[in-house]
Amino acid sequence: MTDVISPDSLIAELPDGMVVTDPDILGGYRQDRAFDPDAGTPLALVRPTTTAEVQTVVRWCAHHRVPLVTRGAGTSLSGGSTAVDGALVLSTEKMRGLVIDTATRTAVVQPGLFNAEVKAAAAAHGLWYPPDPSSFEICSIGGNVATNAGGLCCVKYGVTTDYVLGLEVVLADGRAMRLGGKQLKDSAGLPLTKLFVGSEGVLGIVTEVTLRLLPPQAPACTVVGSFASVHQASEAVLAITAQIRPAMLEFMDSVSINAVEDMLRMGLDRQAGALVVAQSDAPGPAGAAEVEIIERAFAEHGAAEVFATDDPQEGEAFTAARRAAIPAVEKLGSLLLEDVGVALPQLPALIDGVAAIASERRVMISVIAHAGDGNTHPLIVFDPADTDEHDRAQLAFGEIMDLAISLGGTITGEHGVGRLKKGWLPNQVGDDVMDLTATIKNALDPHGLLNPGVIL
Amino acid sequence: MTDVISPDSLIAELPDGMVVTDPDILGGYRQDRAFDPDAGTPLALVRPTTTAEVQTVVRWCAHHRVPLVTRGAGTSLSGGSTAVDGALVLSTEKMRGLVIDTATRTAVVQPGLFNAEVKAAAAAHGLWYPPDPSSFEICSIGGNVATNAGGLCCVKYGVTTDYVLGLEVVLADGRAMRLGGKQLKDSAGLPLTKLFVGSEGVLGIVTEVTLRLLPPQAPACTVVGSFASVHQASEAVLAITAQIRPAMLEFMDSVSINAVEDMLRMGLDRQAGALVVAQSDAPGPAGAAEVEIIERAFAEHGAAEVFATDDPQEGEAFTAARRAAIPAVEKLGSLLLEDVGVALPQLPALIDGVAAIASERRVMISVIAHAGDGNTHPLIVFDPADTDEHDRAQLAFGEIMDLAISLGGTITGEHGVGRLKKGWLPNQVGDDVMDLTATIKNALDPHGLLNPGVIL
Ligand SMILES: Cc1cc2nc3c(=O)[nH]c(=O)nc-3n(C[C@H](O)[C@H](O)[C@H](O)COP(=O)(O)OP(=O)(O)OC[C@H]3O[C@@H](n4cnc5c(N)ncnc54)[C@H](O)[C@@H]3O)c2cc1C
Ligand SMILES: Cc1cc2nc3c(=O)[nH]c(=O)nc-3n(C[C@H](O)[C@H](O)[C@H](O)COP(=O)(O)OP(=O)(O)OC[C@H]3O[C@@H](n4cnc5c(N)ncnc54)[C@H](O)[C@@H]3O)c2cc1C
Repeated sequence: MTDVISPDSLIAELPDGMVVTDPDILGGYRQDRAFDPDAGTPLALVRPTTTAEVQTVVRWCAHHRVPLVTRGAGTSLSGGSTAVDGALVLSTEKMRGLVIDTATRTAVVQPGLFNAEVKAAAAAHGLWYPPDPSSFEICSIGGNVATNAGGLCCVKYGVTTDYVLGLEVVLADGRAMRLGGKQLKDSAGLPLTKLFVGSEGVLGIVTEVTLRLLPPQAPACTVVGSFASVHQASEAVLAITAQIRPAMLEFMDSVSINAVEDMLRMGLDRQAGALVVAQSDAPGPAGAAEVEIIERAFAEHGAAEVFATDDPQEGEAFTAARRAAIPAVEKLGSLLLEDVGVALPQLPALIDGVAAIASERRVMISVIAHAGDGNTHPLIVFDPADTDEHDRAQLAFGEIMDLAISLGGTITGEHGVGRLKKGWLPNQVGDDVMDLTATIKNALDPHGLLNPGVIL
Repeated sequence: MTDVISPDSLIAELPDGMVVTDPDILGGYRQDRAFDPDAGTPLALVRPTTTAEVQTVVRWCAHHRVPLVTRGAGTSLSGGSTAVDGALVLSTEKMRGLVIDTATRTAVVQPGLFNAEVKAAAAAHGLWYPPDPSSFEICSIGGNVATNAGGLCCVKYGVTTDYVLGLEVVLADGRAMRLGGKQLKDSAGLPLTKLFVGSEGVLGIVTEVTLRLLPPQAPACTVVGSFASVHQASEAVLAITAQIRPAMLEFMDSVSINAVEDMLRMGLDRQAGALVVAQSDAPGPAGAAEVEIIERAFAEHGAAEVFATDDPQEGEAFTAARRAAIPAVEKLGSLLLEDVGVALPQLPALIDGVAAIASERRVMISVIAHAGDGNTHPLIVFDPADTDEHDRAQLAFGEIMDLAISLGGTITGEHGVGRLKKGWLPNQVGDDVMDLTATIKNALDPHGLLNPGVIL
């Protein structure tokens, strides 16, 4: 690259200090939680606070043909917010406005707020924002919208797209537009709001979100079962989902149980091959009936121990354990994070197939899952200093996605394709769908400036 | 038009009798339930049974630049399936395949099946397909997907898009492609499945749908309140939705009550100014608590009579009455059908505004509503032989949409823009969104062959 563009004209257009070129600070914005060693070095970092400032940035990029990487909180596990050489990184971290409207039961938020902050603000008004990625305390609403984030309660309450009523987006040409609004139902024109949720920042930048809030969730009962094997655990999961729609249905394997126990010291059963954590928030006798169905399914599929509690705090301890699984396993080595999903009946086959890949490639693969949705996170652990192991881990990474595709499933249930999984996307969706994807991308962003390398 | 294209080459490509040119039969495929007097005369009607045949038709249209109008069951209330002069009408009525997969709890259906047939097939396997437009016995699943149809239970259970896991679509160039699948969560690539649900047939033809099914709905309690005025009824609706999420929350005004009573003779209170029909399907004591909240809200907002029943058949009688409202009011004259929606707190203002327009324009406007979603159907009744009244009805039609827009709402909550409402769409969404809409349409259908005149 000879023609390096200077950010000076952008610096001049924006308030003092909004554009950062200090390499030390830039360094912190190169990688996301996929820790891609090949992350690029950005030209500059810009931290706008308003939609108008985002428009200024995008127009500057469009004019100078500088690629732009949008970054929320940088917790992407698929390299979605990894920097690209010579690109501008637009961080939404200073876009933190929030208005709760109790009359319409909506929250209008800027993208940089953390999911947990939106939840807390809603709760302060006696309302509930359901989507709860495990990362909810450290990820942004804008990132959640861009990836259509899931979480623990989405087996019953749906994913991010189910709560997005309206958006403001800035397109690649710098125009800002509003999609949807506060009305609960809207069939006016193409479903553009839905097109932007889950578009991973390649079609536009989300600058405001109107979220639907619900009345508070009823207190949940938690049932935990420990099993000798993940296969048994996955059979128990199927037995439950065949009968009811639990409010949560998660599992962890022995590697993750032990890693969490090392970290949190909460007394988890270190001998267990797998732990299933289920919740029911159905009220009264209906809840009791669901708990009974869960307990019976656990017992019938060989649970060594079953523990049930209606104490929300005791229940939250197990949820917290499940949420801690990724950071805990991260302490064992470098990770390649999978997010493969299948239709529920294929869950045991997926689990068994992952185990076969682990033994074939001689790598440790810890499996945790939003099991009730058929969405699993095989975590491939490797020593980055061991080139051979690193290579075997990479092979396993691809093979697990191939396996999911062969089972009719998806390479990503909730983390998005990002930069790391795009090589496998054509195998899943086919060339025609890739072509349609490119057609839409090119129509909206003809110069390919927004999040280059993501999805396509 | 001088250059009339002959359908002979298409006839030759398809099985005998699949292409129809008999004017008598064609006549039945000109209008939909919007009864547009200006409906065009199609070149021919084609009734394919397979995706491959749909592709043949689309390729033929693309080659000869013949516009194509897709028609499900023709119950569109916004002229979405109205024929266009010289176009081919593709009816999906013979695409009636269905497979229920109890293991994945999905239904894979061809688009021509009626909604009620899918519901019945699911029920035969102990499962439930929730979306329930009032027209469910006479509208197709393909039409439901194309319009993102709503219904009575969607206040609690969501609209069609919430149940579409996968699609097969044929694009304007004749390629068929599969989007999504049976997995419950899928973030792989752009959310294209969501883009096609509600796209009103302007981006592609839906040839297969994979629908998510739920365990059966619990038996519901029905509470009916009669009020002196629609304004009071709408205040009661707000009081309910502020506290709970009922399984149904509908209302009818005095005109529609009397029209339904004329048709069904079921003993509705002809003196009532408005009837609100609410349901709770929460189990046990939670349901009892919801019923109490509804009854109290009715009483506190001046209900003259409140009737509650947990007998499903008695409840269904009121639901059937509400569903009969449009056909019943249709007997009073020609109708212009509105579908305006607002955020819930604006509901009383919308209701009052419609009444003001009715008196200003001296036309009868009957208001029925999926009140719990803020989605109302003002039905403008006029005598088609009375030109002056017809003109005043047309004015009122536009003014009601203007009113909804001024209240921050939508010109269509569920019926779609079709051909009748497209004049108002730019006022609602703005020029930039119209431009984005056109960009996507042109990228996918550069010759504008699919459903010309719909939305754009
Ligand atoms: C420990 C851990 C647990 C996790 N658990 C879950 C889980 O349970 N469920 C789940 O879904 N994910 C989970 N994740 C992944 C991650 O947290 C989510 O993908 C989250 O939605 C990303 O949010 P972010 O703000 O960090 O986005 P980033 O990582 O900054 O960005 C993610 C993608 O969104 C784009 N983007 C961000 N903001 C915008 C915007 N305003 N406009 C347009 N595009 C934008 C970026 O360009 C990038 O492509 C987990 C991550 C970690 C580290
Ligand atoms: C009495 C009555 C009550 C109604 N109540 C409701 C209600 O409660 N909720 C509601 O949402 N609607 C309601 N409607 C409107 C109507 O029934 C819905 O819009 C329905 O979804 C249309 O289905 P259809 O099969 O009749 O489609 P059509 O009228 O044939 O077509 C509707 C639109 O979909 C397109 N289309 C149809 N099939 C396909 C396909 N396979 N691929 C691509 N595009 C396609 C058409 O081109 C057209 O634009 C009601 C209608 C009536 C007459």
